[in-house]
This record gives sequence, structure tokens and C-alpha cells, in this order.
Amino acid sequence: MANNWEKPSLEQIEKFEGKDVLSAPQFSKAELDVIMNVAAYYEQALLEKRILKDMEGKVMASLFYEPSTRTRLSFETAMLRLGGTVITVAESPTNQTSSTAKGETMHDGITVIDGYADVIVIRSPQKGAADVAAQAAKHPIINAGDGAGQHPTQALLDIYTILKEKGTLQGLKVTLLGDLKFGRTVHSLVDFLAIYGCELVLVSPEELKMPEEITKSLRDRGVKVEETSDLKKALSTSDVLYVTRIQRERFTDPAVYEKVKDAFIVDEEMISGCKKGMIILHPLPRVNEISVGVDKYEGAKYFEQAYNGLYVRMALLALTTGSVVLFRPHRKTVG
Amino acid sequence: MANNWEKPSLEQIEKFEGKDVLSAPQFSKAELDVIMNVAAYYEQALLEKRILKDMEGKVMASLFYEPSTRTRLSFETAMLRLGGTVITVAESPTNQTSSTAKGETMHDGITVIDGYADVIVIRSPQKGAADVAAQAAKHPIINAGDGAGQHPTQALLDIYTILKEKGTLQGLKVTLLGDLKFGRTVHSLVDFLAIYGCELVLVSPEELKMPEEITKSLRDRGVKVEETSDLKKALSTSDVLYVTRIQRERFTDPAVYEKVKDAFIVDEEMISGCKKGMIILHPLPRVNEISVGVDKYEGAKYFEQAYNGLYVRMALLALTTGSVVLFRPHRKTVG
Amino acid sequence: MANNWEKPSLEQIEKFEGKDVLSAPQFSKAELDVIMNVAAYYEQALLEKRILKDMEGKVMASLFYEPSTRTRLSFETAMLRLGGTVITVAESPTNQTSSTAKGETMHDGITVIDGYADVIVIRSPQKGAADVAAQAAKHPIINAGDGAGQHPTQALLDIYTILKEKGTLQGLKVTLLGDLKFGRTVHSLVDFLAIYGCELVLVSPEELKMPEEITKSLRDRGVKVEETSDLKKALSTSDVLYVTRIQRERFTDPAVYEKVKDAFIVDEEMISGCKKGMIILHPLPRVNEISVGVDKYEGAKYFEQAYNGLYVRMALLALTTGSVVLFRPHRKTVG
Repeated sequence: MANNWEKPSLEQIEKFEGKDVLSAPQFSKAELDVIMNVAAYYEQALLEKRILKDMEGKVMASLFYEPSTRTRLSFETAMLRLGGTVITVAESPTNQTSSTAKGETMHDGITVIDGYADVIVIRSPQKGAADVAAQAAKHPIINAGDGAGQHPTQALLDIYTILKEKGTLQGLKVTLLGDLKFGRTVHSLVDFLAIYGCELVLVSPEELKMPEEITKSLRDRGVKVEETSDLKKALSTSDVLYVTRIQRERFTDPAVYEKVKDAFIVDEEMISGCKKGMIILHPLPRVNEISVGVDKYEGAKYFEQAYNGLYVRMALLALTTGSVVLFRPHRKTVG
Repeated sequence: MANNWEKPSLEQIEKFEGKDVLSAPQFSKAELDVIMNVAAYYEQALLEKRILKDMEGKVMASLFYEPSTRTRLSFETAMLRLGGTVITVAESPTNQTSSTAKGETMHDGITVIDGYADVIVIRSPQKGAADVAAQAAKHPIINAGDGAGQHPTQALLDIYTILKEKGTLQGLKVTLLGDLKFGRTVHSLVDFLAIYGCELVLVSPEELKMPEEITKSLRDRGVKVEETSDLKKALSTSDVLYVTRIQRERFTDPAVYEKVKDAFIVDEEMISGCKKGMIILHPLPRVNEISVGVDKYEGAKYFEQAYNGLYVRMALLALTTGSVVLFRPHRKTVG
Repeated sequence: MANNWEKPSLEQIEKFEGKDVLSAPQFSKAELDVIMNVAAYYEQALLEKRILKDMEGKVMASLFYEPSTRTRLSFETAMLRLGGTVITVAESPTNQTSSTAKGETMHDGITVIDGYADVIVIRSPQKGAADVAAQAAKHPIINAGDGAGQHPTQALLDIYTILKEKGTLQGLKVTLLGDLKFGRTVHSLVDFLAIYGCELVLVSPEELKMPEEITKSLRDRGVKVEETSDLKKALSTSDVLYVTRIQRERFTDPAVYEKVKDAFIVDEEMISGCKKGMIILHPLPRVNEISVGVDKYEGAKYFEQAYNGLYVRMALLALTTGSVVLFRPHRKTVG
């Protein structure tokens, strides 16, 4: 992908300027293509060790109202690699340092920070937080996860990874494994996979099945969806295996968790008969859903997937702030 | 203001080099004028989207020993917008990560950090902390609030906002509302308002009246000071309304708090008969002292006021470190 | 030292590229000399107020899984002064925000961050953490302290300070005072002092004596080692006094701590008969091992020593990432 990108038109690029990134479904196929291409352009630039200045002089506010070190560092690195700078709020649940502790509304807090920053990345335990922020801010808001809501950049980097590894998504068979009920990433992802023409296989404990309104909606759109509990058989014909974590907290009965937790572990035996060239993805952190022995399998791409998040986030930061230098001269004046 | 600033002389600028910013009363009228003009210069530079390099290669230590996200992000953004860089300590009361936990004195801690940074911004719950830091450090210290002590940059940005919105302070009638007893900002502010020739109206619950030594001192200096509980009448002749938060903790008797807390709320009804062109300020965060409905009133300038803090802090950082490029060539050599 | 450095050869410099800095004993005398010279070069560059771009476009991950504000700020300043940028994780023991809280291994966590950063600085309460990180990461790991393990940059800056102040280490008599049993810094330091041909005097409470395997090993290497409890007499012939903190937690019997704690305090009386030109060092933070009155003694170099950490860390960051510009042209392309 990185050395195989297509240059979007200036018009396509400019449509992103000033836009928020709030949810996965907001994007059309054409918009996804632009994001993928700009991400690939930035990946190539970094591989060539170019020092980018696309966002020189700009400030990103990195507001993490719940811990997510991986996502925070990915966004902050993306901004720094673009030549921009970062201001950070990194809070833990027990360490509320923001003015919200003093009773201030999120609307007021974001309105103030909007006066400092050129783009705001927000992570919150509360569903809808990014939408509230978007109403308050004049600058672009990028949703880095809002509780049970959306986490659009994760789904975008998943798509980017498959495109990069397989060249296309059209016609691929993608097996989704694990918690398909509560996993917000998976819900965004299946929407994208449907747009790109994939075939889906869903493998999960009964308690954590994909909600029926989603599978129905997919089938109504003509997507081929298979549900099975035979992971090994599914892998023999899959191009992509997407693994998610099964969290104990999701089960009302702990005994059920104990019974099912090992049935969906991806280890060397499980992948021994998989389709040649199958890639394995995981949004990370991984606990024991994928055994460490699988890491050396050449299709194990979950760490590469995490790195890809950097390029996708660079693309989103630069696109929404109108900073993609490739396509236009700097509009700045050096002071 | 932004496009209406006067260029200070090199001599006026140089007087700030190496100086600390510890308290509001430290500034003469002439010095305030210099700060205001340099702040206006930076506001204009940012409006023109200029990428400043005034503090390139310099490091600001942002030491927040108590949470104040808004002030911290404002200072850090100011440094970044000047082309400088930032190192940060952001602690919460329950999360003492600094060496003070190991029994080190603030003097020692600041002496070490003074060896890393070109300028130190310090926020502490302890009155006098900035003065201790100033004694330890060779580089400039900027007080970002020391408990019941001073918070000079807040009063400076208040003045800047009034100047910007009204063109002058001379002869304005300024109504101060809320907690006038404990509010350190208000005490610094009235001093500045007196210097600039304003007339004052004080409106507060009986328990939170402006201390008499302050009102006496103001009157001794010839300032016209009126105390009233009729807010609505006061607003009919006021040019500026400055609102502060009334904190429950300030009352010995909670019943008194409950009784008075709503009597001084600024809502659409309260401002319906105000003087034409009156502006409303608030140091933020706002809880419910100003109803959200007032936000759309064209004189509601409290968010703008927060943004102005950025320009004032840029001015102070650049002035105290001798970095105002407008007035002299860079003294750096590129390595 | 700063204006007295020798330019290492390109070959000597290149040997560091891609290497980790995990422990003090990993360095040969020749390698130590290179680090000292590059540190001195950077000190001189900063004294000349040069704006360095050696690490422009590069990102340092500053991972502090336990609080150590001083060391963290020193490393971050070092990176910023080299023109690089920083992403930070600053955790406290009660505030585990990283994915480790979700059960992720350090190996996985570092593998992901390795995809963002060009160099990783890691501080951990767990011995061996830096080694685990080094196995996971392709980029250089710099150990900023791993519990009871190593803290190599501290010993390096100690050596740098003595070299700078005394011109040479060969033949110096160095008195080490305090907790010589648990102090990991001291163990690394004596190894370096032996390499550089110093003579050692060890002064400590009986409970906190230097472990015998270390003193034996030193003597086997031909180092002259004296153990005494007469600090005052030792100082009359010492060129360097290195003081460390005695921590109450190190004593099984608190009464023993109370009895000995004041016997090794360095105050004005204690140093009154010291050898002319003796310098006093301390890794800081200091509690009361050195009285404040000693700060004005011209040989009191413990704050200077902390500042020297900046230059040594700049040297290590630039060397391990192949960024020392003095010795080679930038290999970058400006984007």
C-alpha cells in the first residue's frame, strides 16, 4: 500500500477541511478511499525518513478523560511526525484533574480548549462525548473512543491494514472472533467491510453473539454472513482473522466465562490448517486470546496493525485541518 | 486591540528580561502597557497565521502541583505557539509524583529544574510557593496561582480583554459580582482597574464582601467605589460586569449558602436592562453563575477572555526570557 | 570539560548506533570516553546558545512507570534540546493508566510503542524491565532505572561531573558516603571509578556497608579500597565526596536508623578540614544528608551534577539513534 497509493484530487481533499471524525458510518466509500490514500502517502514519507512540516505551527489537544495509553501515544506521535505540537490531558478514573471536577460542563471546557488548539482529539468513558465536543468546538474534533459509542480511527486502521496486506478488500472472507456483542470496534468494522465487499464469518460465544439487528442489516445490504462456532473450519477458508478480547465483566455468570474463555484462543494448533496467506489482526491489548507462539507466524499482523494507526491518524489530522502539504502550498507566513 | 497595538521601545522591552512575574501589584502602569501591547502584537501574529520562532530552542517547565487544566494548557499553548517546547509536571492532590514526596524542599527541586528550563511556570496550592521558586531559580518564574496568594496572569488577561473590547479602561464603570472576599483574582484585578482609572461597583453576599482594607485603600487612592446588593440597577449603568463563582466551601453555615446562591445569578432577565454595549467577563470555570442562555448575548466575552489569556501569556514568556523577536534580531546560532 | 572535549572518530560514534543503554558495566573505557566527549560537545553547544537540530523529526518515548520527575524532565529536556519531540507516560503507583492494567505484557506494550518512537527511555519499579523492553524493541532502549537493578545514566553523569570539575579521574581519592548496600547508583559508580583508576574510601553505617563481593572484586582488580567510619578524617585527603541518602525503610530496626542517621550528615563543621578543592556530589533529591549551609561551599557541585545529566543524556540519545550531527551530515530529506 505504502508505495502504491493514488493521489486524491484537491477537491476530494478539501471536502475534509473543518470536518469532525465522530463515527465510522459517517464516511462514504469515496471518503474512505481518500483517507486510505493519504495514510499511505504519509507511511511512505516516514519510510523515506522525510521530516514533515505539514502541521508546523499547529497545536493538537489530546484530551484523554479515561486511560488509553496506546491510542493517546499514537495520536500524539502522529501530530509530532507531521511537525505539529501537542497539549495533553491524560486522566485516570481516580484522578480527575479537569474542571469537570469543579462542575463545569463539557461544552464550556471544550469551548475554552477550542480557543487554544487547531484540532481536538477526545477520548471519554461517556457515549456521545465527542458529539457534545463537536457542537462546542469550531475546530475539528476527532473521536478517539466514547465509551460504548464509537472509535472510528480503530476501524479505519483495520481497513488500512487489510488493504496494505492483501491489496484489496473486495471478495475477501473475513472471520471475526470473540466478543461480537459489546465490541464497538467490530460493529464499526463490519460496516466498512460491507462497504468494501467482504464476506463475513462470525465466531463467538453464544452470550457474545453479534446483535441480530446488525447481522440482519448486513444481509439486507446483500452481505454474505455466516455464523459458526467451528473456528478451525472457518480459518481453512478465511483471508483475514480478526480477534477481539473476551472480557470477564461481560458475563453475568462467571462460570459461563470460565467455560467458554479458552474455546476461542488462537494458538499454533488452531491456525495450523488455515488458508495460505491468512492474516491475523487484533486491536490490542492482547491478553491471551492469541498465544505468544503465533507472533512468529508470518501472517500475524497485529503489531503492524497498531503501527498503521499512526499513518491513518496522520491522515485524519492533516485532512481535517487542511494541512496536507502534498496537495497545496503552505498557506503560512513564517514569522 | 489586536490590530491597534503600539510598538514599545527596545528599552521598555529589555526591562522585563530575567524578571519574575509573581504578583499583580508588581507592575507599574507603564509596564502593564508594554505587556498589553506585546500581547496584542502576538494576537495579531496568530490571526495572520504566522508561524513564530521567537522561543525556538527554548524550554518552558510547566509545574502544576495542583490541577488547573485550563491554565496549564493556556501556558503550554502559549509556549508552543512561540516556537518553544514544554516539559510538564501535572499532579493531582492524590497523586504526588514529585520528589517533594521524598522530603525534598521546593528550593532544591526548583534549583534542579532551573538547570533544564529557560522559564518556569509554577502553580501550587501553597501561598508563597512562587516566591520560594523565584529565590531558587536564575531563570524567570511565572506564578500561575499560589493558593490564597496571587494569580497575576488572570488579572492581566482580564485587563487585556477590557482594553480589547472597549478600547480603553479610563472612566469605565466596572461591576464586580460574587465572592469578593476570597477571590484572589478580584483583588488583583481591582488594583489594576484603579491604576487604569475605572469606577467600581461591588455586588456580593454580605458574607463575601470585599475586605474593608481593600475598599478603603481604593478610596484613599481616589477611586470611586460603590457597594450595593441591587445587581440589576448596577447593570443599567455598567460598562463591564465581572462575575466570579460563589463556592459553597466559603460559607461556615451551609444554610446561608443555600439562601444566597441564586440571588446573584446572571441570566437573560437580569441583563435585560443593562447598559448598551456592556460586556460580561468570568474567569471560568463557570458553574451556574451565568446561565447558558446568556452565552449568545453579544457582550458575553468570557470565552474570548479565556482565549486572550494565550496572548498575554505569550507576551510574558517572551518578555521575561528576552525573546520578543519583533524588537531585535535572534541572538541564536543555528547548530 | 565543556570547552576541552576531543572529537571521537566516526567509527567510534557509529558503534553506538542502534545499541541499548541497559547497565553501567556494559561500557568499556573507550566507550565511556566517547560518551563523555559527546556530552561535553553538547554542553558547549548549549552554552553557546546554539539551536540544535540533531534529532529533528525524531520521537522519544518517555515511559515512567514509577514517579521520577527529575530523571524524566532531564531526559525530556535532553530530547527537546536536540530538536526532537517527546511522547510521555508518567504514572504513579496508584495510577496505573497503561494497558498493563488490562493484563497486557510489557513485551507487547513496548512492541507497540516501538512502532511509534525512535528511542525509548524506560523507568520501572521492576528489576529487569529495561532488558525485557530491549528484547521487544527494534529501536534503542535507555534504562532510566529498573528498581533494584541498574540506573546507568546516573553513574555516567557522576563520572562526567568529576571529569569536568577535576580534569581527570586517574589517581583521585573518592569517598563514598551513606547507603552503600542498597544504593544501585553507587554500585554502578564504583565500577566506573575502578575503570578510571580512582582510589576508594567507603563510609557507611554497619547495616549499609558495601556488599563484600563488590569490595573483593574491586580489590581483585587492583583498586585500593579503604573502609572507615571516620568521615572527617577521610575528607582531609579526599578529592571527591559522594553522598547518598540513607532511607529509613532500609533498616529492619527503626531504633538503629534513629541512632545512626545523624552520624553521617555533611555540614559546614564536617567539611571544615577537608582537602582543598574537594568536590561534593549527591544524586539528589537530598533530604538532610547535606545541610543547606554547605550549598555555598565552592566545591558543592550536586546541583551542577544534576545539570550535567542533561548533556550526558543528550549524548546517549543522539549516539544510540545515530543522530550526532557534528560527525556526519543529516541523512534526512526535508518534506
